[in-house]
Amino acid sequence: MNPIRIGILGYGNLGRGVELAVAANDDMELVGVFTRRDPASVHPYGENVAVWNAADLAAHTDDIDVLVLAGGSATDLPEQTPMAAALYNVVDSFDTHANIPAHFAAVDAAARESSHVAVISVGWDPGMFSVSRVYANAIMPNGADYTFWGRGVSQGHSDAIRRIPGVADARQYTVPVPAALEAVRSGANPELSTRDKHTRECYVVAEEGTDEAAIEEAIVTMPNYFADYDTTVTFVTQEELDRDHAGIPHGGSVIRTGTTGAAGENTHVIEYSLKLDSNPEFTGSVLAACARACWRMAESGEAGARTIFDIAPAQLSPMTPEELRATML
Amino acid sequence: MNPIRIGILGYGNLGRGVELAVAANDDMELVGVFTRRDPASVHPYGENVAVWNAADLAAHTDDIDVLVLAGGSATDLPEQTPMAAALYNVVDSFDTHANIPAHFAAVDAAARESSHVAVISVGWDPGMFSVSRVYANAIMPNGADYTFWGRGVSQGHSDAIRRIPGVADARQYTVPVPAALEAVRSGANPELSTRDKHTRECYVVAEEGTDEAAIEEAIVTMPNYFADYDTTVTFVTQEELDRDHAGIPHGGSVIRTGTTGAAGENTHVIEYSLKLDSNPEFTGSVLAACARACWRMAESGEAGARTIFDIAPAQLSPMTPEELRATML
Repeated sequence: MNPIRIGILGYGNLGRGVELAVAANDDMELVGVFTRRDPASVHPYGENVAVWNAADLAAHTDDIDVLVLAGGSATDLPEQTPMAAALYNVVDSFDTHANIPAHFAAVDAAARESSHVAVISVGWDPGMFSVSRVYANAIMPNGADYTFWGRGVSQGHSDAIRRIPGVADARQYTVPVPAALEAVRSGANPELSTRDKHTRECYVVAEEGTDEAAIEEAIVTMPNYFADYDTTVTFVTQEELDRDHAGIPHGGSVIRTGTTGAAGENTHVIEYSLKLDSNPEFTGSVLAACARACWRMAESGEAGARTIFDIAPAQLSPMTPEELRATML
Repeated sequence: MNPIRIGILGYGNLGRGVELAVAANDDMELVGVFTRRDPASVHPYGENVAVWNAADLAAHTDDIDVLVLAGGSATDLPEQTPMAAALYNVVDSFDTHANIPAHFAAVDAAARESSHVAVISVGWDPGMFSVSRVYANAIMPNGADYTFWGRGVSQGHSDAIRRIPGVADARQYTVPVPAALEAVRSGANPELSTRDKHTRECYVVAEEGTDEAAIEEAIVTMPNYFADYDTTVTFVTQEELDRDHAGIPHGGSVIRTGTTGAAGENTHVIEYSLKLDSNPEFTGSVLAACARACWRMAESGEAGARTIFDIAPAQLSPMTPEELRATML
């Protein structure tokens, strides 16, 4: 069997996570990386991986079976995924939940037109968390869904703090409230406010001579990001931030509790949880598995946009159906 | 939309669980139940549900879209599923792991021959636990799998105790060892023996005048069932057993821990866990969701045997693909 030839568009944290994941799978190989930076400045882990200018995206359609898009959801993917789906089978991790239907429609049109398969919005949320919700809701129609995130680093919240005048650097952790998690896991079906479910921990490096109290006030009162949460702010030195908060951990739990029985007398708790040392490396690992499914669907003649909901789990696995039934069922 | 017309073969605990699950789903209705008992002695919850003799299985092919098989794996399903797949689209919960490949082959042949879809071995293990293993292995190729069962009632172990002379009744709980669970969840990747992972708790009603010490010795030394475990035996009265141990709870956790990174430096923990008040009602709920997928696959022209690995998650859900993307992704 020839390995599936993978390309990556964008070589930041997520792109490197995809490269590591491809290297961990024997049935795929990374052929090349497209970057908007000077290609001479980009150094993949793999010695035989080409580095190409993103402007030359159309020049390598004969070299690549599936292109994994490792850009951001705010501005990169809304443009890149439809454009790339006109040239390649693609996989992306578009994660702006509210815009998924519009993104799906745009990508689907481009992929159908060019007879490619485009798997969108995979990773862990959206992605594995989403598919866990679908299974749990299908099994347990009478119930309630809960999602907890963390303990983990939120890049968006860290960035919001860094935009405050006087802040040199910052790292924000989203933390589930243990009592809320326990109440949900007990099957008690609690009503939980935003504040009940998560707290926010901020580690902030202030520029010399700035008013730390003013920075703290600006953080804890910031609408949407912090005002609705119990937020703690700890000032640290840049050295402390680099030493103690360099990782990008994340994770969380998707829980559905529901009832069955002639009078709803039996309670069931379904939980899917992740504890991830590296958010981008785990997301990259999901993208790699979905690239395998993408290629198989394309090989069988399918075309158009797909999500994790449309992918039979066997398509994600390197094992044959016979091996899966004999060893995993 | 006409509801999916469901039939059930076998009306014990599992059959009743299927009936309750069908009633909880607006897009399906239970038409009838086939039983080997006297039909006049069988009383479904639903007033409009027919009760038919199992010998008349072939007489209702025009009335039923999907037949759910609610028999046992030891002797019922190996015969019933291939036979029923020749007449109906079927779903079963065949759970003798070692015999799944042979069962799949027999059912697949019958279903292909008659152009039906047959979904086998669904429930929670095999079923939801299995599919969780496939996802986690596909995402995280470098890692280790762990499965813990319980705390829950094992029917097979309870039956084994009841076969000991002098035992009037018994109930056995399989219980995960908390320290083992914690070690696995920490990502420490421990080597665990059978004894390390689970303990067994037995509640036994002895017949009057029997030697309790001899019964206890017979239990704790029983090969395969108890000898490899730390087993506790508690003698209770029939009244106590009926009062305190009437439920059929079960559940457990499927955990995969793995590493990513240039040097495997990042650890990830993926866990799917279930806490079920009623094992047969939860299993029945999975069977009902799979009956929906079975009917959709049959309607789209597919034929042959399928497992949960072959079913795209969207097929299990009553929602449209658009609704799923807008609300679940």
